[in-house]
Amino acid sequence: MSSQPLSPSNFRDLFDSVEAFLFDCDGVIWKGDELIQGVPQTLQMLRSKGKKLIFVTNNSWKSRSQYAQKFQSLGISASQDEIFSSSFAAAMYLKANDFPSQNKVYVIGGDGILEELQLAGITAFGGPEDANKAIDLTQNCFVKHDKSVGAVVVGIDPNINYYKLQYGTLCIRENPGCLFIATNRDAVGHMTALQEWPGCMVAAICGSTQKEPVVVGKPSTFMMEFLLKKFNVSCSKMCMVGDRLDTDILFGQNAGCKTLLVLSGVTTQSALQDPSNNIQPDYYANTISDMVDLSKVVCTKH
Amino acid sequence: MSSQPLSPSNFRDLFDSVEAFLFDCDGVIWKGDELIQGVPQTLQMLRSKGKKLIFVTNNSWKSRSQYAQKFQSLGISASQDEIFSSSFAAAMYLKANDFPSQNKVYVIGGDGILEELQLAGITAFGGPEDANKAIDLTQNCFVKHDKSVGAVVVGIDPNINYYKLQYGTLCIRENPGCLFIATNRDAVGHMTALQEWPGCMVAAICGSTQKEPVVVGKPSTFMMEFLLKKFNVSCSKMCMVGDRLDTDILFGQNAGCKTLLVLSGVTTQSALQDPSNNIQPDYYANTISDMVDLSKVVCTKH
Repeated sequence: MSSQPLSPSNFRDLFDSVEAFLFDCDGVIWKGDELIQGVPQTLQMLRSKGKKLIFVTNNSWKSRSQYAQKFQSLGISASQDEIFSSSFAAAMYLKANDFPSQNKVYVIGGDGILEELQLAGITAFGGPEDANKAIDLTQNCFVKHDKSVGAVVVGIDPNINYYKLQYGTLCIRENPGCLFIATNRDAVGHMTALQEWPGCMVAAICGSTQKEPVVVGKPSTFMMEFLLKKFNVSCSKMCMVGDRLDTDILFGQNAGCKTLLVLSGVTTQSALQDPSNNIQPDYYANTISDMVDLSKVVCTKH
Repeated sequence: MSSQPLSPSNFRDLFDSVEAFLFDCDGVIWKGDELIQGVPQTLQMLRSKGKKLIFVTNNSWKSRSQYAQKFQSLGISASQDEIFSSSFAAAMYLKANDFPSQNKVYVIGGDGILEELQLAGITAFGGPEDANKAIDLTQNCFVKHDKSVGAVVVGIDPNINYYKLQYGTLCIRENPGCLFIATNRDAVGHMTALQEWPGCMVAAICGSTQKEPVVVGKPSTFMMEFLLKKFNVSCSKMCMVGDRLDTDILFGQNAGCKTLLVLSGVTTQSALQDPSNNIQPDYYANTISDMVDLSKVVCTKH
């Protein structure tokens, strides 16, 4: 079934049946470090109507506490408990799979991943500390790797370099049973407001190891298990709001949530309606602030 | 049919029917900067018997003239005309496809690619000159790209960084008709004698652009067209000698050559004989120098 534009009539159905709104952040709440127009009012309206708000981001660059700071700096109140980042999901995946305490994790990504792993009691290294390690391929060049690395976690990494690619590849290829975990597989993301940036470090490691990772971010339903444990809401009473069809909307659909696509991020209306697109959200709107206007109509009539 | 170990009887058949031996370099002639034992004697023996020698390498780091220098420094005589590198293939592919003279090429890879493009009269940039370009993802960070880039050529690049990934991605995503060319798709390669190194920059660009490249190196038969034009030998009278099943041996088979796998590089005998392997060369040997001993037996009896 093709998507419906959000209208007064279907918004009332949606609003009445949903207890919790799950928001993607990049392209929905902000672009890079710029807030999308009308967001504070929208979130305030939803809170005032008793709706639960949950923020689910695939961007693993930051930890939950770093995201809470970002929300605050943009003038939005969101507690750490409302935030589910793929950096946190990576740590929870390892905990859920009884990652041996004597093993270590090598990180290709930001210090948000390292922070979440540390909070989960897991020893990790890599990330920012390897940003300046250069490789000079002279005759005796050799990267020695730690045989106790039992998982390599790969997220977006603007400090990617050949040393990190080699280190991660060696652990995955040579350490028996070493896990290969991707925080997400977004091709690109709005790391800044002006431009999208590649999120393709995972693809590079797939290329060099010839292996596919376990993906813990959207559209994998792994994070949903934690949401369900934490918030006492059934999936049918949740609405996933996002700007990406292949991560956000698919994530919502995989879990049995209602889905709302916003056109404030990467997906255009023509891409949504292109015959080649086979992911159809229940509804679509320009931005989440469309809900503010609709709520005035609906709540007045109510 | 499963592969036969090279023996006095089948070596005679091979030797008598083959006019030209095509050699992969990495894992066959050398590992990194170290010559594999017995190589000079083997090449000398083949030349003395009137065989043509052709060196076909997927490693795009160097140009043909840089490879000729490498052969010389290792004490082997090989002329530039006998060398076919994937850096050269990239340039020849663009020439063959009438790359417009007003367009430019962006290179993620070594200066060997830039040199071959320049020799072909094509304007190219990127490569080593972008090695130290750092990205600081602050609010107004923006990479501006040249709209006249009509092709991005990606090879192995130990100086890979986020700037290069972004630049190549922008050209492919935003310049209409921009070609995406991979010199090769080897997962890893012996860039040094002691260790294999990732060759996965192409996979990264596939990840960020969601596009597949045109591959000009092995196992694509593109290079074979040039070999056939240059050397007056039919494919059935050629033998491709390599250490990789999915590039070298497949390349030889795709072109209708005889094929010889050597176990001096990445492929082990157990990998060759594993039931999951479906690429079977005609013959296999430990190193190319096995041919020297066999030639003594065969040529004495002859």
